[in-house]
Amino acid sequence: MKTAISPTRSENYPQWYQEVIIAADLAQVASVRGCMIINPWGYAIWEKIQRILDDEIKARGHENIYCPLLIPLSHIEREAEHIEGFAKECAVVTHSKLQKAENGKLEPASELEEPLVIRPTSEMVIGDVFAQRIQSHRDLPVLMNQWANIMRWEMRTRMFLRTSEFLWQEGHTAHTTEDEAHSHALHMLACYKTFCEDKLGLPVITGKKSKNERFPGAVETYTLEGIMQDNKALQLGTSHYLGQNFAKSCNIQYQDAAEKRQYVHTSSWGVTTRLIGGLVMTHADDDGLVCPPKIAPTQIVLIPIIRKEEDKEAIIAYCKAIQSMLQEKVYDDGRLRVHIDIKDRKPSEKKWHWVKKGVPIRCEIGMNEVTGRNVSYALRIDTNHKREVNSLDDFNNNVIEYLSETQEKLYQSAKNKLSPKHCPLITNKDTLFKHFSTESPTPALIYWHDDDKIEKDLQEQFKVSIRCYPEEDIFNYEERGKSLFDSTKVGQLALIAKAY
Amino acid sequence: MKTAISPTRSENYPQWYQEVIIAADLAQVASVRGCMIINPWGYAIWEKIQRILDDEIKARGHENIYCPLLIPLSHIEREAEHIEGFAKECAVVTHSKLQKAENGKLEPASELEEPLVIRPTSEMVIGDVFAQRIQSHRDLPVLMNQWANIMRWEMRTRMFLRTSEFLWQEGHTAHTTEDEAHSHALHMLACYKTFCEDKLGLPVITGKKSKNERFPGAVETYTLEGIMQDNKALQLGTSHYLGQNFAKSCNIQYQDAAEKRQYVHTSSWGVTTRLIGGLVMTHADDDGLVCPPKIAPTQIVLIPIIRKEEDKEAIIAYCKAIQSMLQEKVYDDGRLRVHIDIKDRKPSEKKWHWVKKGVPIRCEIGMNEVTGRNVSYALRIDTNHKREVNSLDDFNNNVIEYLSETQEKLYQSAKNKLSPKHCPLITNKDTLFKHFSTESPTPALIYWHDDDKIEKDLQEQFKVSIRCYPEEDIFNYEERGKSLFDSTKVGQLALIAKAY
Repeated sequence: MKTAISPTRSENYPQWYQEVIIAADLAQVASVRGCMIINPWGYAIWEKIQRILDDEIKARGHENIYCPLLIPLSHIEREAEHIEGFAKECAVVTHSKLQKAENGKLEPASELEEPLVIRPTSEMVIGDVFAQRIQSHRDLPVLMNQWANIMRWEMRTRMFLRTSEFLWQEGHTAHTTEDEAHSHALHMLACYKTFCEDKLGLPVITGKKSKNERFPGAVETYTLEGIMQDNKALQLGTSHYLGQNFAKSCNIQYQDAAEKRQYVHTSSWGVTTRLIGGLVMTHADDDGLVCPPKIAPTQIVLIPIIRKEEDKEAIIAYCKAIQSMLQEKVYDDGRLRVHIDIKDRKPSEKKWHWVKKGVPIRCEIGMNEVTGRNVSYALRIDTNHKREVNSLDDFNNNVIEYLSETQEKLYQSAKNKLSPKHCPLITNKDTLFKHFSTESPTPALIYWHDDDKIEKDLQEQFKVSIRCYPEEDIFNYEERGKSLFDSTKVGQLALIAKAY
Repeated sequence: MKTAISPTRSENYPQWYQEVIIAADLAQVASVRGCMIINPWGYAIWEKIQRILDDEIKARGHENIYCPLLIPLSHIEREAEHIEGFAKECAVVTHSKLQKAENGKLEPASELEEPLVIRPTSEMVIGDVFAQRIQSHRDLPVLMNQWANIMRWEMRTRMFLRTSEFLWQEGHTAHTTEDEAHSHALHMLACYKTFCEDKLGLPVITGKKSKNERFPGAVETYTLEGIMQDNKALQLGTSHYLGQNFAKSCNIQYQDAAEKRQYVHTSSWGVTTRLIGGLVMTHADDDGLVCPPKIAPTQIVLIPIIRKEEDKEAIIAYCKAIQSMLQEKVYDDGRLRVHIDIKDRKPSEKKWHWVKKGVPIRCEIGMNEVTGRNVSYALRIDTNHKREVNSLDDFNNNVIEYLSETQEKLYQSAKNKLSPKHCPLITNKDTLFKHFSTESPTPALIYWHDDDKIEKDLQEQFKVSIRCYPEEDIFNYEERGKSLFDSTKVGQLALIAKAY
């Protein structure tokens, strides 16, 4: 069977992924190494994600701010441990001018006294903001968020999954007590989980990271892990309890009720444009993207099928009537998003255009539909792209159900990846080695005690890593058991997998 | 009379401006030269501007995209004229890594083969996007927009008015005909004008720029000029018809209906966080910011006045009831935005806090109000901050009117700056020189023919410039007359003023 995307998932998963992105026109590679241009369809999905999450973040009392793109080198140095961990690979601004060289070409001029770094995260700047704003316990908690572009000079990049520049949301909070800050980190993790599962149809396992995988400077790092169609885990977001580490390096103190100076406890948390990569790798098929209805920029597309010029007016008028009718209906967070494709292109081109973009419902409207007061439609999740015919009234009455069903089916199908069959508990070393020797092994659960060396060995031998200690055991296994690598020790249930 | 802002406008306008920004907590100076941190109140205003304009832009058929922050030097070179004009002062990235030097400090490492420039605008990147997307006349028009951060290494910076990094929206369109592209530039100018006048209460004069002030690479540049309280003009946005200049340098061609290759005609247009500076300088007074209700993040603030602890519960409950009641009401683009200030601070501190932030209506709610079912309120535009008492029902019935009146009064008061008295027609050179020799001269209208040298002389002698040839004559003067500087020539009516 011919598919719209070539190669297919089973032929070459990484290549398939890139092709889906191109076919859906989500993004394209930019002329700057490791960067991408996010095209209208991809950006519209990001805007949906932004709008929903921003409302959720604000509903939890956070205020948005905007910090500078550039950070002085001396600021970066102050955060020694932090920078040691991840941000050494970053873009450095050294000049503030271009001038014509003798050969007529432009060259950098006006060298800066102090180099500036494009933000790899804004912890250091937010630290200063907090230090200035926070004087008394009356000023706490401070709950802030920022939507921004971020730059980390990645060596191996892949669109949406890992790019040198990416877009994200970074939340930063300061509290009087450890408990409050720690709870807040978990609170935001839960907010992300609900968002991923409810809106993106993306089931996730949440939990604590192993010491090795902890965010530099954090006391605890929590993660959301999704399992993609190729069985690899993808970290979809993180939330950190930072203890008083940042408070100390940025000198964020407050006067408590007894007029004693105290350091605040902080948290930070973020998700990025990577969510779109996760969406693609979870739901797309060999015909292209599949958008869960709640996040789809267009939920229903109407394609006029005009065989004779004299029918055009009637068909377009009928499409507009259907559009108006549907736009009255409310699904999830607002009115239905309905588009009529009146471009001057062949119907079959249009059909595949919208299949590849993953629009949940596609209607084809010709003279038969006009005269019969019918709607011919196909659901994107029906991979045969089979058309059904409904009377207009029936379609109008059922359309919300079609969308809900699509949303639910996508979620359930993705959830299979988290069944005991796909995510077995392994209590024997040989079984584990055999499991991870296969070509695209599913994740597994093991009893694990933090051990840097064994973790490194596993990474080298099987390219697997400890993804997290799941917060809630999804299969009712015991939370603790004999550690797989040292039976004298008690291990904690851990998710282990290949990962992006 | 003591004012909340010191110095006052008449004492020191530039200093007053900075103090208003600090007092309203709109923004603060960052540790990077010429950059600012936009604080929650300032960013909330920007988000309101964004949300309204974004809806308008999308309603006009534009789609949002996101282009990379960094542009290769070779790309910049291609746009020789463009870059010559304004973008030579820009931040240049030359290294992709930080490493520890012998002295233990971090230093830039991994020099890039080709330096990268932080975007001073995205024309060059969009050009590539257009070139790839546009093949046939069927692909046109292409209407795109981007919300992004921009970097121009400004020497003298002032918060919101001129900062090295700023936030903006940049629209870029491609069309088959000159007429369509040129009309589109004017169409977006009109969209901005409506937005400024209707939402920001900021009357503007729109018109064509003189050749001198034209955007580098543009065929025509149009501007929106506002007149601030110190009589200086502020350019609030621009829209450009770029002709085929960008199409030629970026090779953006399409096949027309006759299968002939043609260059597209392009337009671009943008507004920035400078709009917030314009808002401050137009409406703020000696007690701080004044927010027009349509753009105010909070339109009504309720301040509980708790004299005895035992009254607290009743007062807070009454505030919540008022809040719920008001939140049911719709004004302009949505439900009323009502905040209860329950912070642990003195009522007088709270009062001045919200005065300085410019919230349109401030209510003080104590036991008197609870028992009498009254509301004590003050309008921000009443500079005596006099409190009125209304029954709750009356207040509820009148509140929309109070907001509408405030919005209208702010607009009308700003519009005085555009009366013939404040903006006289001057037809005599000596009169003009005398006019501009005063300390804070109002703008003037003159008949002008483009003359670089005289324009330069005027700039040097009086610090004035030709702001624009007004699109529509607001005072019914003749559109053409004897040129002020050469009576043998016909001049065009032009706005001349000191400007930011």
